[in-house]
Amino acid sequence: MEQDMRFMALALDLARSANGQTSPNPLVGAVLVNNGEVVGMGAHLRAGEPHAEVHALRMAGQKAAGATLYVTLEPCSHHGKTPPCAEAVIAAGIRRAVIATLDPNPLVAGKGAEKLRAAGVEVVVGVHEAEAKKLNEVFFHFIKTRRPFVTIKTASTLDGKIATESGHSRWITGTRARGEVHELRRQHDAILVGVGTVLADDPLLTARLDGQAHGRQPVRVIWDSQLRTPLGANVIQNADAPTWIFTTKAAAQAKQEAFAEKGIRLFVADEQIRVDEVLDTLGEWGITSLLVEGGAAVNGAFLQARAIQKVISYVSLKMIGGGQAPTPFGGQGFSTMDQAVKLANPTVEQLDELDLRISGYPQWE
Amino acid sequence: MEQDMRFMALALDLARSANGQTSPNPLVGAVLVNNGEVVGMGAHLRAGEPHAEVHALRMAGQKAAGATLYVTLEPCSHHGKTPPCAEAVIAAGIRRAVIATLDPNPLVAGKGAEKLRAAGVEVVVGVHEAEAKKLNEVFFHFIKTRRPFVTIKTASTLDGKIATESGHSRWITGTRARGEVHELRRQHDAILVGVGTVLADDPLLTARLDGQAHGRQPVRVIWDSQLRTPLGANVIQNADAPTWIFTTKAAAQAKQEAFAEKGIRLFVADEQIRVDEVLDTLGEWGITSLLVEGGAAVNGAFLQARAIQKVISYVSLKMIGGGQAPTPFGGQGFSTMDQAVKLANPTVEQLDELDLRISGYPQWE
Repeated sequence: MEQDMRFMALALDLARSANGQTSPNPLVGAVLVNNGEVVGMGAHLRAGEPHAEVHALRMAGQKAAGATLYVTLEPCSHHGKTPPCAEAVIAAGIRRAVIATLDPNPLVAGKGAEKLRAAGVEVVVGVHEAEAKKLNEVFFHFIKTRRPFVTIKTASTLDGKIATESGHSRWITGTRARGEVHELRRQHDAILVGVGTVLADDPLLTARLDGQAHGRQPVRVIWDSQLRTPLGANVIQNADAPTWIFTTKAAAQAKQEAFAEKGIRLFVADEQIRVDEVLDTLGEWGITSLLVEGGAAVNGAFLQARAIQKVISYVSLKMIGGGQAPTPFGGQGFSTMDQAVKLANPTVEQLDELDLRISGYPQWE
Repeated sequence: MEQDMRFMALALDLARSANGQTSPNPLVGAVLVNNGEVVGMGAHLRAGEPHAEVHALRMAGQKAAGATLYVTLEPCSHHGKTPPCAEAVIAAGIRRAVIATLDPNPLVAGKGAEKLRAAGVEVVVGVHEAEAKKLNEVFFHFIKTRRPFVTIKTASTLDGKIATESGHSRWITGTRARGEVHELRRQHDAILVGVGTVLADDPLLTARLDGQAHGRQPVRVIWDSQLRTPLGANVIQNADAPTWIFTTKAAAQAKQEAFAEKGIRLFVADEQIRVDEVLDTLGEWGITSLLVEGGAAVNGAFLQARAIQKVISYVSLKMIGGGQAPTPFGGQGFSTMDQAVKLANPTVEQLDELDLRISGYPQWE
């Protein structure tokens, strides 16, 4: 059992190494152990490429026969872009399969394990299960809801401000926290801001390293009821990532056409933009993970809609004051303190002398 | 030297044991060691009672001769309510004196150590000095400025709210954090709130344990320009602690008289209440430590006046939303983010699943 934990931890590490590059597929790692020795390892690196088990079996070759497979997610049993892994595992002569967690898709959950058992493979499920689920929290959420997993990232002072009363916000956090945000963007399929943020900061909204666009770029999504985004804005002019805009029929037709000509994808709601519809639409377009970067009104709308799976809050230990300065979550808010949404499994990390990263999972009842 | 550190740490522990009961005097601990054995210990317990060194010398009796004295603060050399400790130390035949830090009062700093040296005692200064200074940060500040050491305590949600938009605030934090606040009150000479807090919450503002007033009670200070505090308010009707009110000439004369008859001390400013004048006045009345418990307007005024020595911020990991909900520091605020006041030496502690205590010392340039 201790050995099972150890090799599964290794498989989880392998899976993690491809973080941000497998969407819309999950992160999966696999380790093959024969007679106490590691004989194969693999991870799923990119959609369309081989699954983790296949890489590991190839590495092991003949030594796969009689081996134990450690895999972070139940081997697939259906024909997708690649042949079913369960069959390859059986064909290779694996004697025992240790699986961290079953497939989250209720339609296929358990079928891969069943197929292995039917072929005489000893199957163990649930080793490091919580970690395996957390590793693929985005994928699991998407598979079940067909909506992106929503992470809201905020940056505020200790006294809860995301800008001064006059709107000045550069910078709240230090270089390490700001660097992490670019890594966060890289790990998401899309990133959403309100038009207020576009007008105030004219951000690029790309994932950058040392100032240069770096790695996979998230789709930039703008929440802009009146289509006030300027044609000259960075999110329109810069071509490092696609830009999609959610707007309404209230937006001037001429401006809609101008954006369409620039290759901007427009989603036009009849009356008002609704969080639920935005998420449904993004899900239909294959967005499995959405990083919401506010401002206050947009974050408040997601809060009110109870449509947040995770919060990552950078808090800088300084005070700016200002009774009218904006806060991370605006909107109407809840009316009594007992309605406040608590964070489950919170983690608190001090990034440097002044900056904290606080994250957790809103507990919607 | 390792032995010096160890015995001074013990002296600091002894000093700490009287936390909250020595005002306006400092916390002091003393340990006497002869031939490697502890022969005496003492702490200053209450103003007017013997100093730490005297308790330790009494305990040691004849064994004080030839011993080393460890004391957290320079022994006094002047006649106050008690005879000078430096003389008692010399008379007892102490051979070596290890002092954590000199007296903060520039008029007498070093004189006690000088007197010991002149009598042939070997004197070492600076062992655990930073801790000794922190232990008496309140006393040291008061001695130098004649104003109370100001600690602002706030309690907010992760999204920076101290109440909902409709003003509901019970409760933001859990029982452990709320219990700590009563301990904080007990350790302070006075506690200050704005009249808005009195009107909204009608608090008792006493230091309580299990619902009952417990231990030394801080003076309750209300910031109330128009004298809107109701005569029936808990801070007026409850007699567990004195209540002082800062107001202005704009307050109705009849109401001023009614308060005076209730034994409430009124400080009446000509035009507006000013933070500097409040602090000068409180200092004159012997208040060495002030706990400011907001709301937003009062905290903002202290921030604007740069008159905060310490911030203790309870942050509960939940979100309430609300673009108009009040935040810990209101007022006008600073206009650009680089003017934000950073906390020096911050400490972050997770009190329970949801509550953090973040504290530090605002760095006024």
